[in-house]
Amino acid sequence: MIRHVVLFTWSEDATDEQKARVAAELRELPGLIPQIRAYTFGGDLGVNQGNHEFAVVADFDTVDDYLVYRDHPRHLAVVTDHIRPILAARAAVQIEA
Amino acid sequence: MIRHVVLFTWSEDATDEQKARVAAELRELPGLIPQIRAYTFGGDLGVNQGNHEFAVVADFDTVDDYLVYRDHPRHLAVVTDHIRPILAARAAVQIEA
Repeated sequence: MIRHVVLFTWSEDATDEQKARVAAELRELPGLIPQIRAYTFGGDLGVNQGNHEFAVVADFDTVDDYLVYRDHPRHLAVVTDHIRPILAARAAVQIEA
Repeated sequence: MIRHVVLFTWSEDATDEQKARVAAELRELPGLIPQIRAYTFGGDLGVNQGNHEFAVVADFDTVDDYLVYRDHPRHLAVVTDHIRPILAARAAVQIEA
């Protein structure tokens, strides 16, 4: 299994509406991109200091399936239209899990 | 489910042996900490530029179970003895997934 993990910190002026819209848009992706095997995302729970604010963990059978997701027009639209405008920091990996 | 996600970038002088030791030590934790429901970790596959180098994704039933893991002496020993000495950057979240 290929596991894609990405963490975001939002800009200080990001609104609650903008943050909620990211989650709403991401929620549509598993229904649109059948290569996604499992898809979890959500805001940091506030248990620890110094964390990023939001995470996406997406599982795929193969690297090629991950690339279909990465390069899917709808995913790219979410990144361009909803994530990047409020993005302050990003951290990612893809691992075999 | 509570999902703990942490990404690491290693220091430039970290050796392959040191990096392999981190994975070997982490591999022991699910057998020692029964609160862990699922535990995946591994090195970045090199698909994308600018990634961190290593990720751990750990699932728990509750925040309290995550805290047992976070504060478990064996986990703390792995952090102190094997991760922190070669750590250049860290990014983490805990989400409800």
